Amino acid sequence: MKRTLTLLSLISITAQATETPDLETLYRLLQAQQRQLQRQQEEIAGLRRQLAKLQGKHARKRRIKISTKNGFTIKDRDSGSSLRIGGRVHIDQAFYHQDETSLGNGAKLRRARLFAAGAIGHDWRFKSEIEFGENGKVGPRNVWLAWRGWKPLKVTLGHFQEPFSLEGMTSSNAITFMERALPFAFTPDYHIGAAVSGHGERWSASAGIFGDTLQSRNDNVDQGWGSAARFTFAPWRGDGRFLHLGLSGEYRQPDSRHRVRFRSRPESYVTGKRLVDTRTIDRVQDTFKGVAEGAFGYGPLSLQGEYFHTWVERRGLSTLNFSGWYAYGSWLLSGESRPYRPQSGNFGRIVPAHRWGAWELGLRYSALDLSDGDVRGGRERNLTVGLNWYLFPNLRFMANYILADTSPNRDGRHERPRIFQLRGQVDF
Amino acid sequence: MKRTLTLLSLISITAQATETPDLETLYRLLQAQQRQLQRQQEEIAGLRRQLAKLQGKHARKRRIKISTKNGFTIKDRDSGSSLRIGGRVHIDQAFYHQDETSLGNGAKLRRARLFAAGAIGHDWRFKSEIEFGENGKVGPRNVWLAWRGWKPLKVTLGHFQEPFSLEGMTSSNAITFMERALPFAFTPDYHIGAAVSGHGERWSASAGIFGDTLQSRNDNVDQGWGSAARFTFAPWRGDGRFLHLGLSGEYRQPDSRHRVRFRSRPESYVTGKRLVDTRTIDRVQDTFKGVAEGAFGYGPLSLQGEYFHTWVERRGLSTLNFSGWYAYGSWLLSGESRPYRPQSGNFGRIVPAHRWGAWELGLRYSALDLSDGDVRGGRERNLTVGLNWYLFPNLRFMANYILADTSPNRDGRHERPRIFQLRGQVDF
Amino acid sequence: MKRTLTLLSLISITAQATETPDLETLYRLLQAQQRQLQRQQEEIAGLRRQLAKLQGKHARKRRIKISTKNGFTIKDRDSGSSLRIGGRVHIDQAFYHQDETSLGNGAKLRRARLFAAGAIGHDWRFKSEIEFGENGKVGPRNVWLAWRGWKPLKVTLGHFQEPFSLEGMTSSNAITFMERALPFAFTPDYHIGAAVSGHGERWSASAGIFGDTLQSRNDNVDQGWGSAARFTFAPWRGDGRFLHLGLSGEYRQPDSRHRVRFRSRPESYVTGKRLVDTRTIDRVQDTFKGVAEGAFGYGPLSLQGEYFHTWVERRGLSTLNFSGWYAYGSWLLSGESRPYRPQSGNFGRIVPAHRWGAWELGLRYSALDLSDGDVRGGRERNLTVGLNWYLFPNLRFMANYILADTSPNRDGRHERPRIFQLRGQVDF
Repeated sequence: MKRTLTLLSLISITAQATETPDLETLYRLLQAQQRQLQRQQEEIAGLRRQLAKLQGKHARKRRIKISTKNGFTIKDRDSGSSLRIGGRVHIDQAFYHQDETSLGNGAKLRRARLFAAGAIGHDWRFKSEIEFGENGKVGPRNVWLAWRGWKPLKVTLGHFQEPFSLEGMTSSNAITFMERALPFAFTPDYHIGAAVSGHGERWSASAGIFGDTLQSRNDNVDQGWGSAARFTFAPWRGDGRFLHLGLSGEYRQPDSRHRVRFRSRPESYVTGKRLVDTRTIDRVQDTFKGVAEGAFGYGPLSLQGEYFHTWVERRGLSTLNFSGWYAYGSWLLSGESRPYRPQSGNFGRIVPAHRWGAWELGLRYSALDLSDGDVRGGRERNLTVGLNWYLFPNLRFMANYILADTSPNRDGRHERPRIFQLRGQVDF
Repeated sequence: MKRTLTLLSLISITAQATETPDLETLYRLLQAQQRQLQRQQEEIAGLRRQLAKLQGKHARKRRIKISTKNGFTIKDRDSGSSLRIGGRVHIDQAFYHQDETSLGNGAKLRRARLFAAGAIGHDWRFKSEIEFGENGKVGPRNVWLAWRGWKPLKVTLGHFQEPFSLEGMTSSNAITFMERALPFAFTPDYHIGAAVSGHGERWSASAGIFGDTLQSRNDNVDQGWGSAARFTFAPWRGDGRFLHLGLSGEYRQPDSRHRVRFRSRPESYVTGKRLVDTRTIDRVQDTFKGVAEGAFGYGPLSLQGEYFHTWVERRGLSTLNFSGWYAYGSWLLSGESRPYRPQSGNFGRIVPAHRWGAWELGLRYSALDLSDGDVRGGRERNLTVGLNWYLFPNLRFMANYILADTSPNRDGRHERPRIFQLRGQVDF
Repeated sequence: MKRTLTLLSLISITAQATETPDLETLYRLLQAQQRQLQRQQEEIAGLRRQLAKLQGKHARKRRIKISTKNGFTIKDRDSGSSLRIGGRVHIDQAFYHQDETSLGNGAKLRRARLFAAGAIGHDWRFKSEIEFGENGKVGPRNVWLAWRGWKPLKVTLGHFQEPFSLEGMTSSNAITFMERALPFAFTPDYHIGAAVSGHGERWSASAGIFGDTLQSRNDNVDQGWGSAARFTFAPWRGDGRFLHLGLSGEYRQPDSRHRVRFRSRPESYVTGKRLVDTRTIDRVQDTFKGVAEGAFGYGPLSLQGEYFHTWVERRGLSTLNFSGWYAYGSWLLSGESRPYRPQSGNFGRIVPAHRWGAWELGLRYSALDLSDGDVRGGRERNLTVGLNWYLFPNLRFMANYILADTSPNRDGRHERPRIFQLRGQVDF
């Protein structure tokens, strides 16, 4: 500092001097400048070292990445490990213009889920999800461990959904109507099992073996088990355009009590009542269920339908045949397209293109026949009009008006309840 | 590098030379310095570029904000979306010097809650909270979706508390005694519903309509519903000083079984016993409950009281009148003030001003009368002395000594149990 | 900028000039260089200021630390407060080659837990953990508040495990076989209580008093209570070498119904059946349980064993004596050592040393005798072979083959079921 001041004063003196100095003064000035240059060089080197240190720190810090794109995720870039916290809340209100069966107007917390998911290293994924749903019941949903070491192959182990049906494989956050269609009665529940899946650009395939539902556990009996497979193919695919074809099936042996039951609520879950219900079917050897899936989309318009058939093989009794189907059309009034995902053979969430959100109009017809042979479970047909308002990809409001028609219901009576229901839905 | 070395050696040689060099040497030295200056200029420009780049990175990274002020929150500054994880744990131990009724000494996990909450965009908020409470029972608490697009208005949809009573609207993390006073028997539970609220600098108002409790769901009956409103006003307010006045009321129709029941534990929840209990009241048309609220604070001293009245309208039977009230004083021995919040008409958490925490002494008298007409639910009066130690705003220990007096209890007997209970409480 | 350009052009002119300039020109050049030097000095000072500002920002930001080392943790360095989210998932499949008792083949979600844990200030810790386990049952596990103000002392308050037995104190994430050995029947469950613990370099000690299990809560009876203590010592300890000695005991008075029950599943939890079971023992005054613990490790080899004895004092009836023991050997085929932790007297998780993970082979013999006096609970001896594959410290697969032998079982019959079971385990 002292040196610099001395130099500066020297400079100012020489700068003020009007006459040219002599050679010796000039040389001294030059020497002073040289010392100044050296000091600056050292200062620059110092700055460079500090900057490098800060850049290093910055780079190390960037090892941990926090993302908000797809839920809130903390990721360690080095190890590949990550943790994500999320959940969903679906709140329903239903008004029943009931006929014979009392359905009970009211509100319901349809689904509230919280989960932690993530990765261990680069190849392993896990998810642990809890649902508190109907009437305060709490239980596990997706609780699994998956290996993705050989892409696009995936091996999953744990408690998850069997691969079965297009609507069954589409998240409840993304389905077009408030509830899945009547033949969802045939769709297997979450089960503990192991599955392998793979995909190409235009196809997906998955198969697995599965045990029983957690709640059905009984120590005196061997658990039932099932094997399910699904294959989907998209022969035609473009920007906002798709044609989906799929086949899925499940073979299942019930537990050693040899019982099965199929039943369905009237596409409304505020009530617990089922208008159609096979009640317990005994002496069941095994069941086979098959589904033919189809969907087509062109810009804001899309069509979707599935046909379900179930064979129930019984010991010493005739085989039972149950079936159901549904078909619906969706029109995104605001111009978006339903996001078809050929690599998983299902639909993702609609992303609103406008500040005021997206609007969707849907019309669905569904039918379920649970009467065959000695089993008189009833027949139901539902016509539903739905209107959805998507404010964000993860926030939507839904309204459904359902005309149900049983011919007959589980008690042999014909009834035509009408249902109006509303949903507020958020996921994070 | 080579050039610099050459220059430096040149300089050192000239510096050691005692005699003045000739003009040509001087000129060469000047030229060498000039090259050195140019190189330094380039180095400075390089440093400037690197620094700008690092500053840019830093700014981009600050888009994600992690805060620990009010729970642990991850926020995306751009979209306004955020996620917060939190919870609370209350652990109790109670000793009962019982009289007639056996109360059962012991310990209890009074409340353990975990929640995820956050924002979607700038206008929407959500919360999804699970409680595992008494005897291992698990269920949802605050599970809602709220819109704040037109401040200070707020619209809430979901499972939450009806706006009713000052003590009811104050968090269990912030109430002065371990349990709310006896007339809490009249306070509606968490219900699914929709509410609108607003506030000014000195007032708050909220109103909503609500369904039944989740657990009371029955498919054969229409759910009950209620409508509640609350208005609070703070005519006098200053630093550590406040006067709170409030009114709240709830009109409710029970479900189609037409039943209600009011009962209260002796301000102690380790026992499940209720000394006063109307038992099931049948043929109920509707109920109306009203509360007059008041609170006053001056520095470390505060007073709080509420009066509750409940009318039960019955079909073909006389209207029943039940009532209750409580009043208490709190003295923060360590000099802090209870944090009154006029914009929500309730109290926040006490923030200790000292390193060794805050100490609070409280005295409460509460009364509940559940006997009227043909209903002999009993009368109870409790006197409670409470001592609280706040180590952090979110960590406190509580001790309550309660003298209960029934005249008579639900079985017509006079008894005077004494209760000593302790709590450890943390929230995060 | 203009000045610099002028200077540069001046320089280039002089540089190109082959003849030496006169003294005056040289002086002007020197003056120009001097101005250049001053400007550079200012630029360097500017850079220094900007860099200091950025370093300051960086330091402020580093207040919040996100770590992935031990779970995903967000920590505020200033206040010491932190939050950690984690959990575990254990999924089992069991095949029973049963003898007399039907055990029921199948799959089970053995454990799925989620927790939030953390610190409040520098001295307080908390944990709030929920488990959804067998058959969809949900409940709290570790829910506590701990104070560590006087290290190495720790005071814990809440719902946690009583200090008892080496295997009992080792996390289910780290135990060598899929289930703890038969005498785990004597190990107290999670209870609400308070405990104090401390440790040295080679020893650990803890003691506490505890209430009843949450589920056993009954309002008409006083809760039972117990007091447990454990002391461990490692007389020999080195790199991968240890000798562990320990003693633990619990004194307990049952609740005012005076009942106890001891029973054990056959080291397999997919079934709910217990082959040995005292059934309810009445008129119990108190129980005392003692455990002698031992473990020895040398490189990849380790031995572990415990002996359990339980005295059941009854009113007006003879005292009952039950006992059990187990011993096992573990060989880490891939060369790692079991991580013994002398400061808590238990084992941590095995950290694989190879990219393809670690392999462990185990052999265990366990015995439990629940028959004494008038109580004929049965005797069981199990021989287990176990194989574990650790892919990451927090991801492992386990296979156990168990030869069980009852002589007799709870119903007086001799049976020898064989069990093969598999587990997928992840914790995060």
